[in-house]
Amino acid sequence: MNKSIEPPYYAVIFSSVRTSDDPAGYEMTSQRMVELAAQQPGFLGIESVRGADGQGITVSYWTSEEAIRGWRDQVEHRLAQQQGRAKWYARFSLRVCRVERACDFASG
Amino acid sequence: MNKSIEPPYYAVIFSSVRTSDDPAGYEMTSQRMVELAAQQPGFLGIESVRGADGQGITVSYWTSEEAIRGWRDQVEHRLAQQQGRAKWYARFSLRVCRVERACDFASG
Repeated sequence: MNKSIEPPYYAVIFSSVRTSDDPAGYEMTSQRMVELAAQQPGFLGIESVRGADGQGITVSYWTSEEAIRGWRDQVEHRLAQQQGRAKWYARFSLRVCRVERACDFASG
Repeated sequence: MNKSIEPPYYAVIFSSVRTSDDPAGYEMTSQRMVELAAQQPGFLGIESVRGADGQGITVSYWTSEEAIRGWRDQVEHRLAQQQGRAKWYARFSLRVCRVERACDFASG
């Protein structure tokens, strides 16, 4: 995400464990959600990692809690959330946070 | 992490890209830091994922900003931070956040 943005801003930490169901559908929807999120008002960036064991952490960054609610309620995202609960995720935790301070490091 | 803990609490989002240097030393120190963090006052839990491409996200959870400062200043952790900058990380971002709300889902 853009390093010039100064706190405070907001982060959504989405920590999940995938089922083994429907990998192609999951992958397609996952990419689509990143594209859609990037078009939402107040979107700042997204970082996502999934390990070989199916555990994943995605953090998306937003200007405000209002922007997070806007994304939560986006129609196509709502449908993806339903599919996530029905088949893609064995479990997940979702945390809405206010970023208080940040620092970056780049080597050499 | 323990799901019974109610917000507000604090999260440290550590997003990093590994170099290819010293995988054995990195892995050993990484495990040691998880053990040490768990012994710190105010530690609530930790989640960590690293992908095959070297990108990783680790989120640790704490009762307070004071607890986070205590962990930042822990002597053995300080040494690990120096090694991280010197050889293990190509880049990283560190964000200190206040968790405002949280929810969990488990299938079936």
